[in-house]
Amino acid sequence: MPSADLQVLAFDIFGTVVDWHGSICQEMRILYPGTDADAFANAWRDGYQPAMARVRSGELVWTLIDDLHRMVLDQILPDFGLAHLTEPERQHLNRVWHRLDPWPEAVAALTRLKSKFTLVTLSNGNIGLLTAMAKRAGLPWDCILSAEVFRAYKPDPATYLGVAQVFALEPAQVMLVAAHHDDLAGARACGLQTAYIERPLEFGPMRPKDVSAQPVNNLHCKDLADLADRLGC
Amino acid sequence: MPSADLQVLAFDIFGTVVDWHGSICQEMRILYPGTDADAFANAWRDGYQPAMARVRSGELVWTLIDDLHRMVLDQILPDFGLAHLTEPERQHLNRVWHRLDPWPEAVAALTRLKSKFTLVTLSNGNIGLLTAMAKRAGLPWDCILSAEVFRAYKPDPATYLGVAQVFALEPAQVMLVAAHHDDLAGARACGLQTAYIERPLEFGPMRPKDVSAQPVNNLHCKDLADLADRLGC
Repeated sequence: MPSADLQVLAFDIFGTVVDWHGSICQEMRILYPGTDADAFANAWRDGYQPAMARVRSGELVWTLIDDLHRMVLDQILPDFGLAHLTEPERQHLNRVWHRLDPWPEAVAALTRLKSKFTLVTLSNGNIGLLTAMAKRAGLPWDCILSAEVFRAYKPDPATYLGVAQVFALEPAQVMLVAAHHDDLAGARACGLQTAYIERPLEFGPMRPKDVSAQPVNNLHCKDLADLADRLGC
Repeated sequence: MPSADLQVLAFDIFGTVVDWHGSICQEMRILYPGTDADAFANAWRDGYQPAMARVRSGELVWTLIDDLHRMVLDQILPDFGLAHLTEPERQHLNRVWHRLDPWPEAVAALTRLKSKFTLVTLSNGNIGLLTAMAKRAGLPWDCILSAEVFRAYKPDPATYLGVAQVFALEPAQVMLVAAHHDDLAGARACGLQTAYIERPLEFGPMRPKDVSAQPVNNLHCKDLADLADRLGC
């Protein structure tokens, strides 16, 4: 159970708050109807962790996620018969990550949670991306925090501890909310509270996800509305 | 006149959006009724630039404004017969900067501007301070940017150019909105557009401020409602 002095909820974004797979599929089916949109979305996302690893290892200098998304996009386009895309078309497609739709319950649930807690993003997505996404989707953040603020990607401790430091709080007064156990494990190791959100369709219907509970988390929630219920909002 | 491709409005906060002088006076009159609240508020604010200068010169390491406010507070309390304040009393009083009230038209005007532009803070105030202030006062920022993000205080070019970089824009697509000509001059030198906001009572009725127009600014506005009018919101 969460402790009584919880003050800040920090949210992972891709997969936890917004449906990147469904949103990318929807745009691809309109823009490039011949493409296997499901496989394309997963291939793009699959390139994300290896690209961040190249920054972590020092092979690449600090790079915003917008630019990592573009590197991966350029790599995978030929595999999907889209090598002919022009520079403006690539730029437009790359910004689909700014246009991701929230999971259906997210905006209403966040609005409930906002009445009791300070809500911040804690995403590897860059500030510009997160701001554009929030403005378009109506996500009611109190503050947008990002790997870009801390110059470190999750699960670097600098990101989790950075949230507590920004608000002059103890780590246990902050809860990370995420649909990914590795992210939650990183936060827990820094002393944050953790809430797991099931998102069984994060990777689409063809790649089901194990969403079974891990008892190390303070909360295991079906979705963000369930989180709001559990936190008494 | 502002150019057509303006996308982001970056707002100075203390004095431009919130009435620090009036808010501090109001709290002081309640908490410590015997004090000259007007002089106290100005003495506190007067200590702010010299404290930042100590950081800029390297005499102090990077320091959040919450901590600079506290250093100045500890210095001036004896001058106002308040040397007896306890640690919890000092902590509470120092956080008055989180509880500043907006100028009367600010929230409604920002809400109008938000429909057309991305609204961000660009303050030397730290992220935690700006977030708490916005949540309490209902200031509808799309994103909270701060000297803390850029590790440099205004008028360092890293702050103004940093806003443009966060949104992958040209500097001229960003407008700084401020009640202080030195801040606007710093932004203009970096290629940002500028809007001056008159706040004749920023320092209280005893210390009137020259709010005459300087033609170098793109806009000269009576208040934020006037800015919204001028920008067609």
